[in-house]
Amino acid sequence: MKKTSSKQILSEKNIIDKYFKRLNFKKLGTYNFDNDGAYINVPKNYKTVVTTDTIVENVDFFSADPPESIAQKIFCVNLSDLSSMGSLQKFYTLNISISSKINSSWLKKFTNKLCKLQKKYKIYLLGGDISKSKEISITATFFGYAKLKNILSQNKCQLGDDIWITGNLGNSYIGYRLLTNPNLKIDQEKIYSFKKDYLYPSPCMFGYVASKFINSAIDVSDGLFGDLNKILNKKYGAKIIKKSIPISSKLKKILMNNKSLINFEEILGWGDDYELLFTSKKKYRYKLISLSKKNNIKLSKIGSIINKKGIFDDSLKLIKNINSFDHFC
Amino acid sequence: MKKTSSKQILSEKNIIDKYFKRLNFKKLGTYNFDNDGAYINVPKNYKTVVTTDTIVENVDFFSADPPESIAQKIFCVNLSDLSSMGSLQKFYTLNISISSKINSSWLKKFTNKLCKLQKKYKIYLLGGDISKSKEISITATFFGYAKLKNILSQNKCQLGDDIWITGNLGNSYIGYRLLTNPNLKIDQEKIYSFKKDYLYPSPCMFGYVASKFINSAIDVSDGLFGDLNKILNKKYGAKIIKKSIPISSKLKKILMNNKSLINFEEILGWGDDYELLFTSKKKYRYKLISLSKKNNIKLSKIGSIINKKGIFDDSLKLIKNINSFDHFC
Repeated sequence: MKKTSSKQILSEKNIIDKYFKRLNFKKLGTYNFDNDGAYINVPKNYKTVVTTDTIVENVDFFSADPPESIAQKIFCVNLSDLSSMGSLQKFYTLNISISSKINSSWLKKFTNKLCKLQKKYKIYLLGGDISKSKEISITATFFGYAKLKNILSQNKCQLGDDIWITGNLGNSYIGYRLLTNPNLKIDQEKIYSFKKDYLYPSPCMFGYVASKFINSAIDVSDGLFGDLNKILNKKYGAKIIKKSIPISSKLKKILMNNKSLINFEEILGWGDDYELLFTSKKKYRYKLISLSKKNNIKLSKIGSIINKKGIFDDSLKLIKNINSFDHFC
Repeated sequence: MKKTSSKQILSEKNIIDKYFKRLNFKKLGTYNFDNDGAYINVPKNYKTVVTTDTIVENVDFFSADPPESIAQKIFCVNLSDLSSMGSLQKFYTLNISISSKINSSWLKKFTNKLCKLQKKYKIYLLGGDISKSKEISITATFFGYAKLKNILSQNKCQLGDDIWITGNLGNSYIGYRLLTNPNLKIDQEKIYSFKKDYLYPSPCMFGYVASKFINSAIDVSDGLFGDLNKILNKKYGAKIIKKSIPISSKLKKILMNNKSLINFEEILGWGDDYELLFTSKKKYRYKLISLSKKNNIKLSKIGSIINKKGIFDDSLKLIKNINSFDHFC
């Protein structure tokens, strides 16, 4: 059963031919969108790694957000997951449900951004599906590959492991706060920069490069402590040196100037940073630092895996807020 | 950005643990839903075939439809695509966006049906994603495998090929009519049977079995002539022996008793039959018939590929309605 509407000018074939075909044109296995499916080619001795994520209007983005931001987000959430599995990205499929608000200009901007992201991450579209809905909903399934022994898991940390994190945390949160509740004291020229951190999050693709030296990994999408909690897997605890949690200098300034409006805990409870949180044997410390420098990635050692269950600060005081964000509660 | 609601009792973790984990429990590569991704294993010398489809509330199903019907539909649309690529089904991922109307009972029924379907088609869940939305939207990405030389395409038909179709067409359409506009003259005891054809469509999995003997294939999801048109690919035409188009005896009776309310053309313009439409060299005729009997699949030869562009009946009169259904026009 499929309802039709004569009001709609854009046809499915039209949209595919005009906007989506160029995203897989003449690529191996894709059949140029003429088939309903595609096939995947991965090198011998590698496994195909799959991850999938959906982003929904009014949940993961605002309906008035730039289409380029929505394209960036669907790439970011999925690439970040591939990285946290130690996988190199290769292809993706895209299912997009569009509302009547979507017009040609929106589609053009959205697919132009996808095109740029494809080039940046050396990846292409295998195929997909376009449907109608009341609100925009986008699902992407991303494919990568990795050698079986190097595929990373969330729950393989070992006692005594160092805990590492890439990049900086919290900028995305400030961007969101500025968009929804702009009464923060902040230098005018920084506003755009924070909003950009929120609207255009970048995945940290360190997972594939460093997978040989990592025991367990997760991307920070639900907040540092929530995601760390998943790594601990009810087996171990973590001692965190709070002052080593990496935040940008622009965020430090905000915290100083807005003590009554915002606090550090709140920032750490927020996700959407898409940095890589991982644990690794102590002996790989210098190897990891050298690898991160080579790849121009900021890397901070923020603590270690301990036998006592829970997340503690450096004076072994329990940090209470260890529950991960949940879409539904 | 993720909005939270204290009203919601079901948590994402809750839903996964209670309903979805059992769909991939302890299966190779799945990490039991603890990772955000999974890896795929296919036999040596085979390619991984991928297809993806989304179904949306009020477009592809009604919100009050049984959850079991929605589960059947998301399996059917995707399995049918794998079959039309000559692929054997193996795994799937599931992205489900649920509205506030969805409760535990709905999820239980939906996942119980998925469980049954998994067993029937010998397939399991790799992973997925659960989000909130105003209307139910379900995306599944299905994975299968096939040898490269046996992967089927929509547009490889050859001049002189026989045109074949599996099963019967039109039962799903009558089911839909009965649900939306029940003023058809029909025996009471047949009503349930037609509604079942619409609510619980079955994919025809003949594609993998017969792929060696097929030149081009498509599943009938957008109407016989629309899908045939895709096979012709603006290169060839088709001569169709109208009386050989397979319809069930119960549908023949409906057509006889409802001449003013319904006609054959209308039925053929409807999709959702998920039968396999394919073309094959004449020399494979008997091989195909024997294969279909062995697999207990009804198979009808309905015409042949000709040089004259367009779709014609057996007296070479043009059948006009050759445009495929489009979600948006």
